Amino acid sequence: MAGNTFGKLFKVTSFGESHGEAVGCVIDGCPAGMALSESDIQAELDKRKPSEGIASTKRTELDKAKILSGVFEGKTTGAPIAIIVQNEDSRPKDYGSIAKLFRPGHADYTYFKKYGLRDYRGGGRSSGRETIARVAAGAIAKKILAQKGITISGFVSEIGGIEAKNFSEKDVAKVYENQFRVPDKEASKKIEDAVKKSIIAKDSLGGIIEIRASGVPAGLGEPVFEKLDAQIAGALMGIGAVKGVEIGAGFGCAKSTGSKNNDPIRIVKGEVSFMSNNAGGILGGVSSGQEIIVRAAVKPTSSIAQKQKTISENMVNADIEVIGRHDVCIAPRVLPVAECMVAIVLVNALLENLGSKISESK
Amino acid sequence: MAGNTFGKLFKVTSFGESHGEAVGCVIDGCPAGMALSESDIQAELDKRKPSEGIASTKRTELDKAKILSGVFEGKTTGAPIAIIVQNEDSRPKDYGSIAKLFRPGHADYTYFKKYGLRDYRGGGRSSGRETIARVAAGAIAKKILAQKGITISGFVSEIGGIEAKNFSEKDVAKVYENQFRVPDKEASKKIEDAVKKSIIAKDSLGGIIEIRASGVPAGLGEPVFEKLDAQIAGALMGIGAVKGVEIGAGFGCAKSTGSKNNDPIRIVKGEVSFMSNNAGGILGGVSSGQEIIVRAAVKPTSSIAQKQKTISENMVNADIEVIGRHDVCIAPRVLPVAECMVAIVLVNALLENLGSKISESK
Amino acid sequence: MAGNTFGKLFKVTSFGESHGEAVGCVIDGCPAGMALSESDIQAELDKRKPSEGIASTKRTELDKAKILSGVFEGKTTGAPIAIIVQNEDSRPKDYGSIAKLFRPGHADYTYFKKYGLRDYRGGGRSSGRETIARVAAGAIAKKILAQKGITISGFVSEIGGIEAKNFSEKDVAKVYENQFRVPDKEASKKIEDAVKKSIIAKDSLGGIIEIRASGVPAGLGEPVFEKLDAQIAGALMGIGAVKGVEIGAGFGCAKSTGSKNNDPIRIVKGEVSFMSNNAGGILGGVSSGQEIIVRAAVKPTSSIAQKQKTISENMVNADIEVIGRHDVCIAPRVLPVAECMVAIVLVNALLENLGSKISESK
Amino acid sequence: MAGNTFGKLFKVTSFGESHGEAVGCVIDGCPAGMALSESDIQAELDKRKPSEGIASTKRTELDKAKILSGVFEGKTTGAPIAIIVQNEDSRPKDYGSIAKLFRPGHADYTYFKKYGLRDYRGGGRSSGRETIARVAAGAIAKKILAQKGITISGFVSEIGGIEAKNFSEKDVAKVYENQFRVPDKEASKKIEDAVKKSIIAKDSLGGIIEIRASGVPAGLGEPVFEKLDAQIAGALMGIGAVKGVEIGAGFGCAKSTGSKNNDPIRIVKGEVSFMSNNAGGILGGVSSGQEIIVRAAVKPTSSIAQKQKTISENMVNADIEVIGRHDVCIAPRVLPVAECMVAIVLVNALLENLGSKISESK
Repeated sequence: MAGNTFGKLFKVTSFGESHGEAVGCVIDGCPAGMALSESDIQAELDKRKPSEGIASTKRTELDKAKILSGVFEGKTTGAPIAIIVQNEDSRPKDYGSIAKLFRPGHADYTYFKKYGLRDYRGGGRSSGRETIARVAAGAIAKKILAQKGITISGFVSEIGGIEAKNFSEKDVAKVYENQFRVPDKEASKKIEDAVKKSIIAKDSLGGIIEIRASGVPAGLGEPVFEKLDAQIAGALMGIGAVKGVEIGAGFGCAKSTGSKNNDPIRIVKGEVSFMSNNAGGILGGVSSGQEIIVRAAVKPTSSIAQKQKTISENMVNADIEVIGRHDVCIAPRVLPVAECMVAIVLVNALLENLGSKISESK
Repeated sequence: MAGNTFGKLFKVTSFGESHGEAVGCVIDGCPAGMALSESDIQAELDKRKPSEGIASTKRTELDKAKILSGVFEGKTTGAPIAIIVQNEDSRPKDYGSIAKLFRPGHADYTYFKKYGLRDYRGGGRSSGRETIARVAAGAIAKKILAQKGITISGFVSEIGGIEAKNFSEKDVAKVYENQFRVPDKEASKKIEDAVKKSIIAKDSLGGIIEIRASGVPAGLGEPVFEKLDAQIAGALMGIGAVKGVEIGAGFGCAKSTGSKNNDPIRIVKGEVSFMSNNAGGILGGVSSGQEIIVRAAVKPTSSIAQKQKTISENMVNADIEVIGRHDVCIAPRVLPVAECMVAIVLVNALLENLGSKISESK
Repeated sequence: MAGNTFGKLFKVTSFGESHGEAVGCVIDGCPAGMALSESDIQAELDKRKPSEGIASTKRTELDKAKILSGVFEGKTTGAPIAIIVQNEDSRPKDYGSIAKLFRPGHADYTYFKKYGLRDYRGGGRSSGRETIARVAAGAIAKKILAQKGITISGFVSEIGGIEAKNFSEKDVAKVYENQFRVPDKEASKKIEDAVKKSIIAKDSLGGIIEIRASGVPAGLGEPVFEKLDAQIAGALMGIGAVKGVEIGAGFGCAKSTGSKNNDPIRIVKGEVSFMSNNAGGILGGVSSGQEIIVRAAVKPTSSIAQKQKTISENMVNADIEVIGRHDVCIAPRVLPVAECMVAIVLVNALLENLGSKISESK
Repeated sequence: MAGNTFGKLFKVTSFGESHGEAVGCVIDGCPAGMALSESDIQAELDKRKPSEGIASTKRTELDKAKILSGVFEGKTTGAPIAIIVQNEDSRPKDYGSIAKLFRPGHADYTYFKKYGLRDYRGGGRSSGRETIARVAAGAIAKKILAQKGITISGFVSEIGGIEAKNFSEKDVAKVYENQFRVPDKEASKKIEDAVKKSIIAKDSLGGIIEIRASGVPAGLGEPVFEKLDAQIAGALMGIGAVKGVEIGAGFGCAKSTGSKNNDPIRIVKGEVSFMSNNAGGILGGVSSGQEIIVRAAVKPTSSIAQKQKTISENMVNADIEVIGRHDVCIAPRVLPVAECMVAIVLVNALLENLGSKISESK
């Protein structure tokens, strides 16, 4: 059981099903005295909305965040911050017809085996709506990080095998203006074609996202089991549809050599400077001061309108067509969630590191 | 701080530096009444020893495990099991000459920034010797799993870009007889050549390992943040030198489609049967009863005898040659550690799942 | 930070301030498949309402519990259960006049020092309304325990130095019918007189509560740091106004001898039977199968209308009269909260104990 | 299971049985850069040795602490500190004759029910020797606190109903010179007589200890479930033989009134000053800057040479005489353990509080 709380010091507890009353979270451990309003949360939540393009579900999601506690006179008080988002547009009938069938690629079968019953309405707890909690909490985490000069950015680097190759930091900065969150315009066009084809084929596409954290001071992360990259890997793999995570050179380093993969160190203008960043900003599980770079593989959307083979709750073979409003590729919507998970990990690492030296643990 | 304890119910606390008095661990939460002896631990520890081939360090490591507590009359008592391995062959002089230089690719710089000082003897806490604790604990975890019909196996699937392609389950079963832990003989020969060249070039090689868990019942793993794959990803990324983790089809699924990537379900001879295993045995963070399949990317050994650019503790540019006994590719030695981490995650998942249904939480 | 989550496997996260939008909790780890409705929660919440007698605040508290998640078709699903109670009758003006003064005996000063600011509206987070979360969660815990044959009861054993002496188990069973939750009618009358005098004197009274858990199987509780009595002591001392906790003979055993205090054991009609219960049902931190008996000392209500010496936020001496709706003795309202905390501890102990023996950790 | 790790940021993991190979602990989360040697640990360990008087066991316990890890060149490195104490003087035969009988007042029966087997050698894990781990860890905690100006002291305030009444702070400072750890000489003499009588009667005595922490800054402790007093209560109740814990006025406040029990606040010479300390230095679960005062009730030693009624493992009635080397009153030996547990709680609170305000969580 359990599993719905994340973080040791900046603790996020998530709740809510896709077609229940509401989804939300409780954030415990937010430092007191920080300005915080619902619009801070909303700005981040809006990033996980379906974009206006062709890639996304047509479901109208307002997702208005309401802060129930922990903020007084515009500032955090140190008390837990409860945030709630009502489920407004829930059409249970969409799902009713396949209520007793296990959708391939979904948690339907495994939840049923684990709990002996399941909430079949849109996946219930395993729905992507659960990520609202992560994003709401991540909005607060990002605000804390911003005060320490740390910024998180991200983009979709690949959809359907089409990679973003030519883009600048500027393109990354405004990536949410692109319907696929892809910073490379040319790639984006190709992806649009691929998505169109996929829609016609009643199929779906996978993708890869990349998250970067800049301004992270050296020294964050705990050695051994709670390495910063271990925490990030766990945080990202815990997002639905993510099937792989890599840091820096990642799987590429398996084909590299030590002389190429090691990042040489120099003093440049009085500052420590790494001459490459294959490590992705983390050495021995502790941040090096370089940019942290992480990528995650997102599987093709499991819900497809094609006929698929499955079984029913009473263990009988059946066919299923998962009709409804589903994104062809979920990577663009996983992106803000992944950014927020990285932010939550970093806030925890920041707080835990405060007592790393005897001279500083006043 | 902290970070040296892993697991919620089967808790492993690791301690010890490469050139300190001893390394070891305390396992808290092992169910009572299981037969356990030092030879159980030793058998697993012996797997992480350098193999007899060319790939490994020449350091003679006896690594004799001693159980200090938690076992009485040959059985676990429910009390914490402390295991200790003395550090016998520690030659501090090997490292003394580079004591004030940060070795590229190592935790030297980041630990120094985090703690304000560091144990420069062979990496101290960040040394691979720390994994003795994981393997000792994993030996117990594997024994618990065996009683539930769960077995963990693993192999090195790639070194220096050379992949193991042709091999059977039998080859996997006896993979520890191969110096590279590679189940494909032909690939192994090519790897031997690559390793020889790498030694001459004073360089090192990366690799990929694969871990499989068979017999895992459906229902293990907690949804949302503590998904089984999230826990495994964190556990593997927390091993030194691992830079990427993927489950099932992993990064490959980014280029796939829903119709190919979803694993169809059928009833075959009265049993639930998946017609493929792109999910790697985990759906929605919960085990499906299929084989769990995980891969991890291992970076090339950071310690190379080539001249590399670095800086010293007093922030001055310097060159460094990391001379000593270092494996050309660390993947074969990461393998048993990774197996053990997966075993520890599964034992925790087993124990936590005991109370998932009201009817069973007696 | 943190501190608002309780329990390892049955995890309760509490949120909300007395004069904020709402108070509530998220319960993570409730086993799936248990019937649960809002009326189950409400029945327990009603016990913490002010009674109709003279002892309590006149504030009209409706405190209607709403379940937001985790229950589907009348049963728990294994997903986190979020429960919310809107704050309806909040009159901030009552408190406004003393907003900048630290009320003696309250958390005002210490919160201000800890957080650098504070929510002065009725104590904010430190208000007794926070206990709504505990009681809502405890209602679920009690229901789980009931299915295992475990019942929790409690009563007020002393107010203003007047002890309940003559009472039966029946009196305890219907103690919530008494305005002071005192099972001894004669004592209750004396207490009523004492309370009347205290009201006239603009003063308040302390008390003692006793909680009993019956039907607890032997074997619950973890040795060493997580002894069952250690967990209960922490749980009760964490309730506002509680200043002492004792188990079984408690402080009385300090004046006893081993020959009197040890509980002899006999086989009676084939069953293990203790001939006394000075241990309070717990030996070595583990339940013995006897009734668990705990008492907690509740300090006199800190809010009194008498003039008291204090200081203001800007560190100037001042007088304060805490006018408002305050219970003369808070013990009767602490009672249901304490029962619920014991219930939550026991559910956690039950779940954690499922894996204590290898034969049972299937 | 589990239960052998204490603390969130300064984590202590304890292991070892009374007649096993060794007892010890691993401390994870000690800030780096603090001078630490085995003599620091030894000084504290020596306090828990039997005193030279009549009150204690005659068992010769050398209890030499050895640091295995986490200290390099005389300073803590941030790595886990493993400390081990070999069990030298273990005479298993003392216990063999009663191996299958459950000693009344001990954990024998409850461990047997919990685990299905038990280590009958001197209580095994439930032996007082387990507290070596707590004291070793507490020695480090005390050293950290000392650097922040916080000191912990303690004394035995009552044995066999005889209270220490007349004593000064000086007497408390040198209380370990007294065989009963009682600061009042006259009371000590009376206690000596009572102890002599108890020895003759083959009986034992209970007692009360008091712990004080001075120099604790305001603001430590987390509200709600992790109140500073809740943590202390759990920490002390988790020591074997402790059956009650109270803070400040404790159970006495049940008979008091708000006007007497509230501690008035004044500005005295520019400093915040409380005019009494019924709160025991903690308000709303957070330290107020006043001295923290806690008391714990210690039950009479359960091991007595008198004939007692019990049963055997095969559920047959029997008589038992627990012959061996047992303290008449265990309070003097619980004292240093309790001091150390309070120290460990305070170090955790200090570390956790570092991030309470946004301005300080750099």
